[in-house]
Amino acid sequence: VNFADRLAAAVAERRSQVALGLDPDATRLLPDAVASADEGPVAERAGRAVTEHCRRLIEATAPACVAAKLQLACFERLGAPGWRALAEVAAAARGAGLLVIADGKRGDVPHTAAAYGQALTGETPTPWGTVQGLGADAVTANPLLGRDALEPIVSAARAAGAGTFVLVRTSNPGATALQGPHGDGRPLYEKLAGLVDELGKDAVGRCGLSDVGAVVAATQPELIASLRELMPRAVFLMPGVGAQGGQVDLLGAAFSPGPAAALVAASRSIVDEALEAGRAEAAREPAERLREAAWQLSG
Amino acid sequence: VNFADRLAAAVAERRSQVALGLDPDATRLLPDAVASADEGPVAERAGRAVTEHCRRLIEATAPACVAAKLQLACFERLGAPGWRALAEVAAAARGAGLLVIADGKRGDVPHTAAAYGQALTGETPTPWGTVQGLGADAVTANPLLGRDALEPIVSAARAAGAGTFVLVRTSNPGATALQGPHGDGRPLYEKLAGLVDELGKDAVGRCGLSDVGAVVAATQPELIASLRELMPRAVFLMPGVGAQGGQVDLLGAAFSPGPAAALVAASRSIVDEALEAGRAEAAREPAERLREAAWQLSG
Repeated sequence: VNFADRLAAAVAERRSQVALGLDPDATRLLPDAVASADEGPVAERAGRAVTEHCRRLIEATAPACVAAKLQLACFERLGAPGWRALAEVAAAARGAGLLVIADGKRGDVPHTAAAYGQALTGETPTPWGTVQGLGADAVTANPLLGRDALEPIVSAARAAGAGTFVLVRTSNPGATALQGPHGDGRPLYEKLAGLVDELGKDAVGRCGLSDVGAVVAATQPELIASLRELMPRAVFLMPGVGAQGGQVDLLGAAFSPGPAAALVAASRSIVDEALEAGRAEAAREPAERLREAAWQLSG
Repeated sequence: VNFADRLAAAVAERRSQVALGLDPDATRLLPDAVASADEGPVAERAGRAVTEHCRRLIEATAPACVAAKLQLACFERLGAPGWRALAEVAAAARGAGLLVIADGKRGDVPHTAAAYGQALTGETPTPWGTVQGLGADAVTANPLLGRDALEPIVSAARAAGAGTFVLVRTSNPGATALQGPHGDGRPLYEKLAGLVDELGKDAVGRCGLSDVGAVVAATQPELIASLRELMPRAVFLMPGVGAQGGQVDLLGAAFSPGPAAALVAASRSIVDEALEAGRAEAAREPAERLREAAWQLSG
């Protein structure tokens, strides 16, 4: 099944376009999660605590969300125990009915890009049998290396019914210098948008959306309408809502093709309320507020 | 100590600019490595076999090399056991006197880029103590997100005396469309080269080179002289020699600032000879040929 159709079904069923961003920091965990990791080497305790923290946040917010976006860097920094935590958190998210977005922004030459595909949405053959990858429902990918380097990531995802969100316009302040207007030419993000549209045009689902989407910052609402024109079939994954300053009510153009045409990713603005309250349940309300705001906008 | 000075000392001592590329594929391992992984779950067997394979290749080729370039994707696809193998292979490379280059081409918004810095060259605080990162001597980084997103990776590396190689021109055939001339403007790789020069100018070592280097494909020798002009202080990490078609004798301009101004990375052209012979020792000769060719060129 095409990823876009899976997403459209999930959005309709859950009435949500919210992707819970999980970027766990071992120094900012729920107290119960810290208490649960009561012995073992440092990295293993941290990995267990991170897993428990994410599990609780998933449980608390899942009714308001359609996806969990796992920030690979935050797991990787704990080494092998972190990678194990990543797999456990992905399983917890799936168990709660959420789609799993592996946010690693990978990109490399074709031969290596294929290995990233195996790691995140595929599987890896060995002389002793197959090693299953993370089993993500979608990945983020960096397009700087060009079309031939994206294709193995897109293909691996597609073969698994998963999607690929290609960076087009990121949410950091410094993005403009690289992704914006360049020399006398048009902005790089327009070129990237063209690449997204090209890569996705042969895999448009029944819902009219493609399995190749785009990361488009919620912090640059003035760009959304023109990017939507350049990528009429792409699902937009929109980070930067909340802590980074993006406002959900300015994102209407992203939803013009339909309610599953955009996902709104929020991390700190949801998770921080749980941390302040010292309990995961406090994350439910900000997640629900965001769900309601996005759902209204797309309806 | 500045990374460039550490590199310059190592190049002078070892009379080598060769970076052994390790991109392990569990279906193409040395027979002894396969035999050594005799029990356990699939991913753990594969992780142990990959470690042993890389260890043997390091041992066989280290006298001809100055660095080992570890392709993170190839370890990641084995999950947590793969990440453990990565740490073990890095330790083996260090033990053989090689600098370790973590080739992950990471890049993300500043907050997340800092986490990649912790993972690869830094450390991560937790309530139970500090988790040490991979301890790489250098990393590769993707500049698409712009300067503010590169800075945390460069800073983390710099604080550890490590270096950062920023992608400027990659070795895949499709790179030109994104990294080459754009609209009516100048090529993107020139803009990226300017960014490398900027980021590195405050960290030039006694050797005259900086701790911020550039990935410049060996497959595009006609670009090297102009890129060298734009980045006079950058160490060039040059993939694509051998299997991808790059010829070492065309890379002279890269070495114009001195013998440590470029590293020649080769993977398949060295490792395949060991695989064909069925023993790691057979990798020594192609590594030594490459060492000699690069050393002559820079002398």
